[in-house]
Amino acid sequence: MIADYSDALIVQEVSPRDGLQIEPTWVETLDKIALIDQLSLAGFSRIEAGSFVSPKAIPALRDGEQVFQGITRKPGVIYVALIPNLKGAQRAIESRADELNLVMSASQTHNLANMRMRCEASLAAFADITRFAADYPVRLNGSIATTFGCPFEGKIDEDRVVQIVEAYQALGIQGISLADTTGMANPRQVERLVKRVLERVSASDLTLHFHNTRGLGLCNVLAAYEAGARRFDAALGGLGGCPFAPGASGNICTEDLVNLCEEVGISTGINLPHLLEMSRRLPALLGHELPGQVAKAGRNCDLHPPPAYIATL
Amino acid sequence: MIADYSDALIVQEVSPRDGLQIEPTWVETLDKIALIDQLSLAGFSRIEAGSFVSPKAIPALRDGEQVFQGITRKPGVIYVALIPNLKGAQRAIESRADELNLVMSASQTHNLANMRMRCEASLAAFADITRFAADYPVRLNGSIATTFGCPFEGKIDEDRVVQIVEAYQALGIQGISLADTTGMANPRQVERLVKRVLERVSASDLTLHFHNTRGLGLCNVLAAYEAGARRFDAALGGLGGCPFAPGASGNICTEDLVNLCEEVGISTGINLPHLLEMSRRLPALLGHELPGQVAKAGRNCDLHPPPAYIATL
Repeated sequence: MIADYSDALIVQEVSPRDGLQIEPTWVETLDKIALIDQLSLAGFSRIEAGSFVSPKAIPALRDGEQVFQGITRKPGVIYVALIPNLKGAQRAIESRADELNLVMSASQTHNLANMRMRCEASLAAFADITRFAADYPVRLNGSIATTFGCPFEGKIDEDRVVQIVEAYQALGIQGISLADTTGMANPRQVERLVKRVLERVSASDLTLHFHNTRGLGLCNVLAAYEAGARRFDAALGGLGGCPFAPGASGNICTEDLVNLCEEVGISTGINLPHLLEMSRRLPALLGHELPGQVAKAGRNCDLHPPPAYIATL
Repeated sequence: MIADYSDALIVQEVSPRDGLQIEPTWVETLDKIALIDQLSLAGFSRIEAGSFVSPKAIPALRDGEQVFQGITRKPGVIYVALIPNLKGAQRAIESRADELNLVMSASQTHNLANMRMRCEASLAAFADITRFAADYPVRLNGSIATTFGCPFEGKIDEDRVVQIVEAYQALGIQGISLADTTGMANPRQVERLVKRVLERVSASDLTLHFHNTRGLGLCNVLAAYEAGARRFDAALGGLGGCPFAPGASGNICTEDLVNLCEEVGISTGINLPHLLEMSRRLPALLGHELPGQVAKAGRNCDLHPPPAYIATL
């Protein structure tokens, strides 16, 4: 059975936030703004543009206000901000973020390590945030980190993930992201869980966030798409990573995902040559190579001249 | 529909041949023998152990005879040799290779660049080889390079691939490999072509050879497996590459493939911890990092201790 690839796939570009947050090199505010503006022009409808966390916790993203102030907002594009707490929500709303992305881990241990609080405390904080945000025209998205596995606890009970989805919805959080924070998902698990979650969340409110830590990122995208998911996080060049898997890849690579979609006939609305140009400038900006493949290999249609000697054969 | 993953997947390990052939560092004959012997112990039933090509054409593999003489043959394991011509076939049979792998490209231009002859001349040479080999207890496999796309010509007509399969069979070549030489395949194309070829070739005679040049190698494996293919080439660490895509990945990575299989419940008979140990020794042997991911990230079940500060929260 040939799968039905007629629905568009929506890529939410996360390089300005999830991609840059663990980069050791400081990226100038103007370079961040230029990156986001180029992403807007390349055709993305959603961009995670920054975060409003403590500058001590994540110094690489300490310029959230300046970034949101400096970007050229393209009509129709949703500019998302990651926020860790009520103070972050206030800053993000003042900076006119279109959507606030809240994060809690399915794993209690990972939430303690990442957010320095238990899940119960995270949910209580989310309640404060949703009450505050209700007075503003801002969207809310709740991410569930370590949905598909935790580097400390291992397997995560799928019932627990579904319960968190329901807890988010009870708080009025409409968007849901299932995040494979350290790249532990496999396609069979993804298919099963996406189908369960789509019984509770509409496809237009669901995002899948995969990492390519163990090489399965794009396999998981296809499995999730075939199970009905339509929106995916990805980062230019495959930026980002996981402190618990040094040397391994981070986020799935946007241009590799868009290339896959073009090859199998799934539309994305994104300009792949423009993306490739942008990705090829990243090593100079960041001082290191990136894991993305298509930026190195070119598209299938970028043909090579045959060697001259064949004319003499 | 959850796919049926009950059939085993057979991995043919190609690192000693396709993996090493473009390595600039000379790998000592004893190190090649040790690599192959470790692969035999790790559970592979098929190993492409070397080639019998001109030492001028591929100096990295100029020790084919010594390698085949030096390895410890594990009963039941098939040790394959790549051969370019009748002379290579004679050398491989003298060296007691269990199977001869012949290669022609579906693309006329690629065959001229790679084999320095037209496809018609390749097929005529294959006829000589099959006549010669008929007197010996040796298997024959025919690889079709650039099956899924050519870096010079672009798209390859699928009818042409099927005609080459039939031409190979008419010559008495039982095994068929469909090779994505420069990583241009996509899962939809793979599904379609594998189904067509399986109308003519039994699954036990068909091998799929994917490269991860554009990040789609494992997606293509899953698509081919779900379409009925059961045997796949892969190289430890993702060794190998393509001279036309510098910096891009080469063969799909064996341990990443075996990890995928374990996670989704497809049996391979291969010892993954043993493979990871072997892969982690490759950078010291070859003097550079390799693209494989699981060797860097560890398996999902290799858990990490949580940070100490969470005890104080």
